[in-house]
Amino acid sequence: MTVTSAAEAIVLRVTGEGRVPLQDAVAVEEPLEIRLGWGRVIGPGRGVSITMRTPGDDLALALGRLHAEGIVRDLDEIDAVRHCGRPVRDDGTSNVVKIQLREGARVDLARLERNRYSSSIHGVSAKTSLDAVREQNPPPLGPGPFLTPMFVHSLPRRMRRHESVFDGSGGLHAAALFDGDGRLLRVREDVSRHNAVDKVVGAELMAGALPRTSSILFVSGRASFELVQKALMAGIPVLAAYGPPSSLAIELASEHGMTLLGFVSEGRFNIYCGSNRVDDQ
Amino acid sequence: MTVTSAAEAIVLRVTGEGRVPLQDAVAVEEPLEIRLGWGRVIGPGRGVSITMRTPGDDLALALGRLHAEGIVRDLDEIDAVRHCGRPVRDDGTSNVVKIQLREGARVDLARLERNRYSSSIHGVSAKTSLDAVREQNPPPLGPGPFLTPMFVHSLPRRMRRHESVFDGSGGLHAAALFDGDGRLLRVREDVSRHNAVDKVVGAELMAGALPRTSSILFVSGRASFELVQKALMAGIPVLAAYGPPSSLAIELASEHGMTLLGFVSEGRFNIYCGSNRVDDQ
Repeated sequence: MTVTSAAEAIVLRVTGEGRVPLQDAVAVEEPLEIRLGWGRVIGPGRGVSITMRTPGDDLALALGRLHAEGIVRDLDEIDAVRHCGRPVRDDGTSNVVKIQLREGARVDLARLERNRYSSSIHGVSAKTSLDAVREQNPPPLGPGPFLTPMFVHSLPRRMRRHESVFDGSGGLHAAALFDGDGRLLRVREDVSRHNAVDKVVGAELMAGALPRTSSILFVSGRASFELVQKALMAGIPVLAAYGPPSSLAIELASEHGMTLLGFVSEGRFNIYCGSNRVDDQ
Repeated sequence: MTVTSAAEAIVLRVTGEGRVPLQDAVAVEEPLEIRLGWGRVIGPGRGVSITMRTPGDDLALALGRLHAEGIVRDLDEIDAVRHCGRPVRDDGTSNVVKIQLREGARVDLARLERNRYSSSIHGVSAKTSLDAVREQNPPPLGPGPFLTPMFVHSLPRRMRRHESVFDGSGGLHAAALFDGDGRLLRVREDVSRHNAVDKVVGAELMAGALPRTSSILFVSGRASFELVQKALMAGIPVLAAYGPPSSLAIELASEHGMTLLGFVSEGRFNIYCGSNRVDDQ
């Protein structure tokens, strides 16, 4: 984590006994623009999206976002990933990340538009969302990892040990990746849990570690359709969440044989699908 | 709430004593496409965005979303708002909402693009985000309402009384609008708290009740920059959240004289800015 993930705020705490001024940490939120460039063309590139995020791990966030959408699949397609535009932080970073694609990289740009607007006259539905992910050809998920209930119960505790601002302000979501032996591989924080997952997956992509065929992704919030999609594209076979999943998250995970766990806490959790990866004792 | 906000799922609950199958409610998540049409032109219109939402109050959601972005300001600009495309639900609704603008409506379409991609060579920053909202000319906020700490402490309890699935599954966020006398005006639920707020504001717009100059908006999650922006555009002077705000949420609220409350619960809350609207006793 960078030092920019938390800012100090003066707040008035109001209780039954009156109000007390105090200094408190709040999560930093700033816009990040993701741009794509091609081959030897120099210039600002093409704006792909603006997302509100907590500064830090911006390059991983940008790569992870485009990986989840099926735009960028492989490091081979990329020449450079860097901040550009006016620096706004002491470490020289800006709020713009440009991904420079290699000359001739096979990148499905039409998908960018399809992900944002429907091209079908019939409109969108749960089915078209499931179909769109299938068309992205996610890697097949491995049979493992195999989890004991005791390990799943410990996930919140293990992640919390490595969080920075989360405990202090509660203002950050977190995502943690564990290997099949329960070792923590990465933990990332952000005002958005979608960004936190993009940061984890983007870092794995940069490390050449995708697909992560025997790993567990744990997120601090609820499990949405998009979080299942991100895990799936990264080849992660188990998604566990502190909160519950949505209907479409369960459908997508189930269709691809992913294990989806919700309400994970010390002492209990729910299996929504893929119970074969959880030890039955 | 419509009956489609919750679906049944068979889950395995795992505790220290083993696993038990049970039927549980999960929040429904499905895509919604928002389209714009102009004047007498018939056709599918122009796709503006696809958002994942809990079905129900789709028309309000679409209107609220475009209102927050400064695209649609007034009911006078709109000829019709309706579902289109193939029905996917028993009540005949689809997952596409088309907003038909009146011939000659002054709608800032360039803003649509600006909201998604930066046009500045300098890129985006906290400052450009604040500037962009100022350029949307939000209505000035009224001096009131004036709140007692006791009323603020009661907000979670008051909202919970009117929620449907939220208590059952924890899978839905909720947003509730109260008037200056503490009466509940509306409560809406969704997998996304941004959508829940759009549904509330969109319904107020349809009722001709904007700007809501003396009201309080309470949300079940954290207070992000975008939630402050949505409240601001609706003229709502107090935003209270169950969780904490981000740095940029505080900056935006502070700049416009909004009262921003966080960690609101029975017995305590924090004032991040605009303490003048909270009774000091």
